[in-house]
Amino acid sequence: MQSFELDKTDLQRIKSALEGNDADLEKILNEYHASEIAILFEKLPQEAKEKIISILPADFASDVIAEMDEEHHPEDILINLDPEKRTEIVEELDDDVATDIIAQLDEDEQQEILDDLDHEDASNIRTLLSYAEDTAGGLMTTDVTTVNIGMNKMEALDAVIKQSEEQEEFYTIFAVDDNNILQGIVSLKNIIKSRHDVMIRDLVVTEFVHVQADVDQEEVARLIQQYNINSIPVVDEHMKLLGRITVDDIIDVMQEENTEDILKISGVSEDEELSGSWQDAVKSRLPWLVINLGTAFLAASIIRSFDDTVKALPIMSAYMTIIAGMGGNAATQALAVTVRRISLSDLTDNQAYRTVLKELLVGMINGASNGLIVLLVALFYDANPMLGLVLFLAMTGNLLIAGITGASIPLILKRVGIDPAVASSIIITTFTDCFGFLLPLWVASKLLL
Amino acid sequence: MQSFELDKTDLQRIKSALEGNDADLEKILNEYHASEIAILFEKLPQEAKEKIISILPADFASDVIAEMDEEHHPEDILINLDPEKRTEIVEELDDDVATDIIAQLDEDEQQEILDDLDHEDASNIRTLLSYAEDTAGGLMTTDVTTVNIGMNKMEALDAVIKQSEEQEEFYTIFAVDDNNILQGIVSLKNIIKSRHDVMIRDLVVTEFVHVQADVDQEEVARLIQQYNINSIPVVDEHMKLLGRITVDDIIDVMQEENTEDILKISGVSEDEELSGSWQDAVKSRLPWLVINLGTAFLAASIIRSFDDTVKALPIMSAYMTIIAGMGGNAATQALAVTVRRISLSDLTDNQAYRTVLKELLVGMINGASNGLIVLLVALFYDANPMLGLVLFLAMTGNLLIAGITGASIPLILKRVGIDPAVASSIIITTFTDCFGFLLPLWVASKLLL
Repeated sequence: MQSFELDKTDLQRIKSALEGNDADLEKILNEYHASEIAILFEKLPQEAKEKIISILPADFASDVIAEMDEEHHPEDILINLDPEKRTEIVEELDDDVATDIIAQLDEDEQQEILDDLDHEDASNIRTLLSYAEDTAGGLMTTDVTTVNIGMNKMEALDAVIKQSEEQEEFYTIFAVDDNNILQGIVSLKNIIKSRHDVMIRDLVVTEFVHVQADVDQEEVARLIQQYNINSIPVVDEHMKLLGRITVDDIIDVMQEENTEDILKISGVSEDEELSGSWQDAVKSRLPWLVINLGTAFLAASIIRSFDDTVKALPIMSAYMTIIAGMGGNAATQALAVTVRRISLSDLTDNQAYRTVLKELLVGMINGASNGLIVLLVALFYDANPMLGLVLFLAMTGNLLIAGITGASIPLILKRVGIDPAVASSIIITTFTDCFGFLLPLWVASKLLL
Repeated sequence: MQSFELDKTDLQRIKSALEGNDADLEKILNEYHASEIAILFEKLPQEAKEKIISILPADFASDVIAEMDEEHHPEDILINLDPEKRTEIVEELDDDVATDIIAQLDEDEQQEILDDLDHEDASNIRTLLSYAEDTAGGLMTTDVTTVNIGMNKMEALDAVIKQSEEQEEFYTIFAVDDNNILQGIVSLKNIIKSRHDVMIRDLVVTEFVHVQADVDQEEVARLIQQYNINSIPVVDEHMKLLGRITVDDIIDVMQEENTEDILKISGVSEDEELSGSWQDAVKSRLPWLVINLGTAFLAASIIRSFDDTVKALPIMSAYMTIIAGMGGNAATQALAVTVRRISLSDLTDNQAYRTVLKELLVGMINGASNGLIVLLVALFYDANPMLGLVLFLAMTGNLLIAGITGASIPLILKRVGIDPAVASSIIITTFTDCFGFLLPLWVASKLLL
């Protein structure tokens, strides 16, 4: 299929086809990729989606369901379908995908769906439902090709081909013993290429990366990325093979984790859906704003305590907002670089120490540079060299503090087990605001009054 | 291999082994995965790295080179190696990896390496060097398995196996005609499963996603993610097959793009390396800070123009910093959500319109909520109900403006072809600072003076 952009015409076409007969509708739907229909679903009413899924053949319908974003609730379609059709669709789904969708339903509804499935699918999905969603167990599929290390080439090839019927992909093959204990990995290429009398035992690679079911998905993503592998086996504590995670699952995890990082660093709750309702947005953001308001009062109380200075030098009122604001900007820069470094790899003590030192230096230099500009403005615009000196010192000091806190706060939070992206920016803004007011007012009270 | 954490012991072990004889060193190195040695390299001096690469067998050495982060300059090792060994290593590298490394060298040095390679590798790398690094062409490998649609099963299987010698992965197979024009994709599974007399022609899937060599890597990542495919063929304008891009390449692209997004939204140049020098950091961040200083002067000039109000009501000086700061925070929230939405998918006009409307509403509600708190403080702490009213109105107004600008500025920038992450936060802070001072001072000058 040509990769093309969906537009209003496509939506219109399907909407009109929905008025006509089922055969014509199915013909039109067949021109689209399942993922495109999933995108069009975002703009169709619930009844239309249910009608489309019910007239599509089960394998195509299951692809569409699988491609739907969980934000758009594929489970709502599934639960309203004719039970026979629903069973067909669920059995076509990869069991990890089916699990994610079914997990969104009430326990009664889950039961209703699982009772209709064949024994193996139902038991696989029940197992997967027992893992937490954001762990390796919640991410893996149990559709995994295995060969016994006691098989010879033709037996193995037969087994692989037999199992491949069920699967999209069968390239990475895991070798297990009679007790399903993982012995290593073997590539299909090597099986096909080997002589007829070779045993899998002789072909297997016994050094390989694997994870246990409770490993965090971020760690799985890091391993897959670090080792450049296409799939990773999931095992229990006795190395019994439970399933595998493929790289395409990891891509979604990474986008999700990255979205969370960007939101958290900006003071938005990680649970806020990007295209969620305004009610959700208020619920996710208002608490952070109220905390920020508290810290803003703290900063403002500093201004109040220098009431005499402000009255005597009303011009400080404008300049100190510049110094506080610039501190916030510089701190945000240092924070972004540090948070991103932490999220890509763990830093050693020495690396952490050098990061803070670097940001201190960068803050001081950037502070002095901007301080110089402000000094020149005070000199030529206000004709007040002492004011210039006060502002230069305050700007340099505040950006130095911005650099130190921007780098050290996320590192400290990480060490004590708090997500550095969440709380960092509030703590740091508090520092740069407080010092942004304190430094110019205090230096001014010493040098100018 | 067990997935384990590297620590100082590992580094120490290798450092002491470097003092001993080569055989012992090689034995110790063999206990590590290539990607682990690449990580240890980050802490070793240049001579040590060159020594290790020169004593490792070429296939292992090339894996280490391939796993090195480009920030740590694998090309510096390559260029100093004995030419014979270097040629062996480069020929072992996937040609897309070799290209990325060689691209970092001077033209003379590139020539020196390419002249020693066999004709095919040299010509592949020369072709790849001609594409821009962040395009599909720059990302793809030319190691691609093909079968002719005129082949029968055994011929195809033979061809696949023959080509697979050169490759890590040979699962997705592309079917071409006599002129190397891409006809479709065929799965190895289907070839193996089919009867002996079946033609590839009958097995090929003619609907598939493909990209041209100049498509941006972000778009390639989006396609691979959208269609959940493991590799994507790269073609020229006549559908002639040029190569393929695999999903593991895309993971790195995504991490890179996400790092850029987080940095840009925080006012850091996207070129700044996370673990770069302080000089680079100053160069990357100072320009943004100076621009910010300009906009801060703009905001401060508003305070100056209300000199009389500030003198008559010095208390405003503290409160207006709260209102400006809260506007900045609320705008950052709206900005993060909108920028992330844009980077994950294009918004239709209608979606864009509804996004701005939603953020307007969220801003107004959050503004009124925080405004109410400030009103109560003014009422009970300052015993000044009119001041409370002024602050309530100003807070609500500024957070409403924050919501509108936070959502609309990135959408507008995107439409006019400017990267929304780059300039948005500066423009938006300018709005929230200016209105954060203007609104309370102006309303106060009307109601309180």
